[in-house]
Amino acid sequence: MGMNILVAHGGGPTAVINRSLQGVVEAARASGQVDKIYAARFGAEGILAGDLLDLTDVSPAIITRLGDTPASAIGSCRRKLGDADYPTVLETLKNFNIGAFFYNGGNDSMDTCHKVNELAKREGLDLRVIGIPKTMDNDLVLTDHCPGFGSAARYAALSASELALDASALPIHVVVLELMGRNAGWVTAASALAARLTNCEVLTYLPELPVDEDKMLADIEAAYAKGNGLLVTVSEGVCGPDGKPLADTGIVDGFGHTVPGGTAQHIADAIIRKLGLKARAEKPGLLGRASIPYASPVDREEAYAVGWAAVKAALAGKSGYMVSIEATRESRYQSGMGFVPLAEVANAEKKFPLEWIEGGNRISDAFFDYALPLIGGDLPQYAILRK
Amino acid sequence: MGMNILVAHGGGPTAVINRSLQGVVEAARASGQVDKIYAARFGAEGILAGDLLDLTDVSPAIITRLGDTPASAIGSCRRKLGDADYPTVLETLKNFNIGAFFYNGGNDSMDTCHKVNELAKREGLDLRVIGIPKTMDNDLVLTDHCPGFGSAARYAALSASELALDASALPIHVVVLELMGRNAGWVTAASALAARLTNCEVLTYLPELPVDEDKMLADIEAAYAKGNGLLVTVSEGVCGPDGKPLADTGIVDGFGHTVPGGTAQHIADAIIRKLGLKARAEKPGLLGRASIPYASPVDREEAYAVGWAAVKAALAGKSGYMVSIEATRESRYQSGMGFVPLAEVANAEKKFPLEWIEGGNRISDAFFDYALPLIGGDLPQYAILRK
Repeated sequence: MGMNILVAHGGGPTAVINRSLQGVVEAARASGQVDKIYAARFGAEGILAGDLLDLTDVSPAIITRLGDTPASAIGSCRRKLGDADYPTVLETLKNFNIGAFFYNGGNDSMDTCHKVNELAKREGLDLRVIGIPKTMDNDLVLTDHCPGFGSAARYAALSASELALDASALPIHVVVLELMGRNAGWVTAASALAARLTNCEVLTYLPELPVDEDKMLADIEAAYAKGNGLLVTVSEGVCGPDGKPLADTGIVDGFGHTVPGGTAQHIADAIIRKLGLKARAEKPGLLGRASIPYASPVDREEAYAVGWAAVKAALAGKSGYMVSIEATRESRYQSGMGFVPLAEVANAEKKFPLEWIEGGNRISDAFFDYALPLIGGDLPQYAILRK
Repeated sequence: MGMNILVAHGGGPTAVINRSLQGVVEAARASGQVDKIYAARFGAEGILAGDLLDLTDVSPAIITRLGDTPASAIGSCRRKLGDADYPTVLETLKNFNIGAFFYNGGNDSMDTCHKVNELAKREGLDLRVIGIPKTMDNDLVLTDHCPGFGSAARYAALSASELALDASALPIHVVVLELMGRNAGWVTAASALAARLTNCEVLTYLPELPVDEDKMLADIEAAYAKGNGLLVTVSEGVCGPDGKPLADTGIVDGFGHTVPGGTAQHIADAIIRKLGLKARAEKPGLLGRASIPYASPVDREEAYAVGWAAVKAALAGKSGYMVSIEATRESRYQSGMGFVPLAEVANAEKKFPLEWIEGGNRISDAFFDYALPLIGGDLPQYAILRK
């Protein structure tokens, strides 16, 4: 008999986290070394409660469908484990005789992963722990990028381009688009692709650079006056010079983070009130991490590959690592899987490089050299009719 | 030599209005009877200013790209023509020696179309006028449905389903999705497909039925308590018992209509404040009429066909009609083109049938019998894992 494995999701889902789950399940089946395949229901909550799904005998057809199913098919949570929780986690792992544990998530989840690994070692448990990276925010360190980012970036890039065409076609208002990203502007930066694919004016604001609202409004007025239409794209977490978000929802999440939101509406209101222009705010919100039609083909493949690599590594005896993506962009984009110690990834955050923001609200070519291969697939070629 | 033709767009664009433009241009070229192909820049504004694009020699490759270009490649406007404007319109038509005029739009545009046709007749002008239907709202009468609706409906249906999966996977909040539709709930009704494709609870509110906010909140509380996650979908124009929108932007558009908006945020705020639950509001807004990846294949074909049929009809001598879509759903969906007098379409509005709303917030099978062929294409099959 082989070992039992357990996989869990942590934090916000992405369009491709189920692709990683598919990779885990199919690698486990292909190995011939896995007995039971368990998945925790709703992440850490399921581990604590011993509430596991048994995926061992789920039909291959359903497992294949995971690849086209957004969000998390096993459920996730935003519960941050406290020191008192870890013994309960170990209890569940022992009760189900788990030999390998895979936690698929972002910074907070890698921290959990690391702590479980350390505790298991201290207790002499024969457990392999491997982190599987996931975050649309792309803010994990020591990996070229994170699965989930490419799809969120493609969503931002194409949605913004489509919106820019609308703003140019009917230039009766400034259109403000809010995209997810509390602290990291990676996804919102991708929306600046609209400036390359359309004739619309595009201004982009990321949370990494504090925004002076008067300067922003002056820039908006000047850009709109050019008469080509104007799209303003903003991260939900954009802050003023005081370091506070321009707008927030008044909600604090399970990890203790303030939930920003309403930033685009705040800016649209200021445009109406202070500039006397019409403006409207669009906020696709969670749609930006859940869309399958906009998913990046490269991201889909890599999300599968990190799941597969995690299982192979654990079966080979590795523990205490996160799968990382190593990529080169020389002549063409190529990627492969690597491994980085969980301790070095946990709770660190990769910020968007300030030198990739030009004049406060334009995104440089250097970003697109990095991101276009991840956005992946053919980019649209729009019909632009000129006089 | 053949005749010169003029095409113009009116009102908000859709994902497929450029497909109709492609149909117009390609039918004109194929006919061998058209000399110059003009397009008004920014709709009625361009006609009044004599600001026309000459598309006669635009390359076939660019014309083909129109089919994958959202919004309006020639520009549109929301200017409602007044009686004093019509002589100027006739002046432009005479100056460019226009023999056939095609106005591609919704209710207001069909009214304009009708008036131009009447005036031309009175003045003895040899002009054929054909309306090409377009509105994501689906509120034109005497046509089975409108080009633009199928794609907006597919966007609403699939986006809502993806959001429902997210809401079920991480059920820490009620998710409220706002969709376009000031007076007509056709598009928002399509979002109820999420109740069929996922396990999430889904409540749907349309502008045709006044909403009692206390009752709505009680229903939300009960649905969320089931523990499967909850998605609430609302038209932007949902009203209270007093007939006023639950929320509006304070803006009045060029046609004199109040611009609703912020409805989902208003409901999310009420959920937080009155029910003590977490909630978030998503509002893709204009993205819902601009998305190419979510466009309906059937809608794309029909949008092309109405443009093509308009040119054929005008060349055959018809005038004063709007192209309509005639459809049957016996055994399978089939559609063809018909013609209805402009006078009978102008300014009328097709409301969503109240009998297709069940219990105030569920959408009946009868609606989906009507709409699924228009939403078109294969529907996703998600992996649903049960304990």
